[in-house]
Amino acid sequence: MTKQEKLHQVHDSFILGIDADDTLWENEALFYKIQDHFFELMSFWSEPPETNSVLLENERESIPTYGYGVTSFIRSMVITAIDISKGEIETKDISQIISWGDELINAPVELIPGIEEALMGLSDQYNLLLITKGDVLHQRAKVEKSGLSDFFWNIEVVGEKDADTYRMILKRYGIDPEKFVMIGNSVNSDILPVLSIGAKAIHVPHHTTWELEIPDSKELENVDFPVVEKMGEIHEILSGWN
Amino acid sequence: MTKQEKLHQVHDSFILGIDADDTLWENEALFYKIQDHFFELMSFWSEPPETNSVLLENERESIPTYGYGVTSFIRSMVITAIDISKGEIETKDISQIISWGDELINAPVELIPGIEEALMGLSDQYNLLLITKGDVLHQRAKVEKSGLSDFFWNIEVVGEKDADTYRMILKRYGIDPEKFVMIGNSVNSDILPVLSIGAKAIHVPHHTTWELEIPDSKELENVDFPVVEKMGEIHEILSGWN
Repeated sequence: MTKQEKLHQVHDSFILGIDADDTLWENEALFYKIQDHFFELMSFWSEPPETNSVLLENERESIPTYGYGVTSFIRSMVITAIDISKGEIETKDISQIISWGDELINAPVELIPGIEEALMGLSDQYNLLLITKGDVLHQRAKVEKSGLSDFFWNIEVVGEKDADTYRMILKRYGIDPEKFVMIGNSVNSDILPVLSIGAKAIHVPHHTTWELEIPDSKELENVDFPVVEKMGEIHEILSGWN
Repeated sequence: MTKQEKLHQVHDSFILGIDADDTLWENEALFYKIQDHFFELMSFWSEPPETNSVLLENERESIPTYGYGVTSFIRSMVITAIDISKGEIETKDISQIISWGDELINAPVELIPGIEEALMGLSDQYNLLLITKGDVLHQRAKVEKSGLSDFFWNIEVVGEKDADTYRMILKRYGIDPEKFVMIGNSVNSDILPVLSIGAKAIHVPHHTTWELEIPDSKELENVDFPVVEKMGEIHEILSGWN
């Protein structure tokens, strides 16, 4: 049975959208490690909190154009380094920052404990659609390296996870919003926009959340969604909904 | 009638895959313009042909990891500048190179003459799927800016245009390779991999072709595909095939 056929067979049950970074595997920890190297590199000119705030500002500005991937992060660090050092940073340090991009891209994929078992159970009963933002090549490479690709009916790498993007994906596959459940660690990217289009969402928090992914408390008023500690708990919630 | 319904209605005729950069709108010309600025910036250390050859080498190395987008191009220029100047290039020049990325991304989209009329005619009779490689956000932004998005049933931004990618897209939409025709300006990306999976392709050459997109003459032995001067000529070829 091909994946296409499988979709038709089980079309009455839910289609699950599943986030990747910090839902299936560790991601932010890698960025934080590189960020610490960066703070150290800049420590001649500025203290870590100050470097962090300039970096965050540059990231915030870059995201609409350059997105959330490694390339955007590296670009923001180079700009921040030139800013903070008032142009005094040496080119060897810029080369160093650029090489951190390779380090991030070549890092092994470290699965969240229990994720394989959880996906195995879910993929028996539901069609799983991986939905991730970032650089196309890098995100696809991580899926391959993770060994999880066979659990997924399809993989979508998107530029931004907003209501329009989710609407486009559901339309593309002809999925009824009532039959779609998004699962992920970011309230801003995986939960709120999905609820806003009439679909369901389940929050699996990660132990860290990047500042730009923390929702405004106002946005959490009047919305309600299940929160679970581990992917292994998803199955029960879905059974209750079906 | 929604686009989804339309796909079902006309499923007996061809689905057309259509390339974007230098097929629908000018692209390389913009890169060449920036490249000229770069050659000038580097002229204190090296002559344009030498700069070009180091840049091409760095681009070739970057593509498998960083792809074909603006971010990959900018990264390659920064690395090349540090290489060629033996680290002597000033940080203000690096900032300049980075700002060329914004210039490329914010450039107006200049349509190839006659493209709107051609797409209007084709989209009346066939489902059009835009297939482009590069950075997700930038490629989608160009489609929006172009005013052409309504002609397309869907838009796929991919990391690489090889046989595996085309196979994946056809599988995703359940398209029979015999019913798929790819149309584009790059023999390497739009023609050869498509023929290799048993689908059809039509070449619409652009007046310039980037060196890394020029096929090896050996690869052109034993393959045969129509070449047209303008998108407006596609219709007649498809009618002959149907």
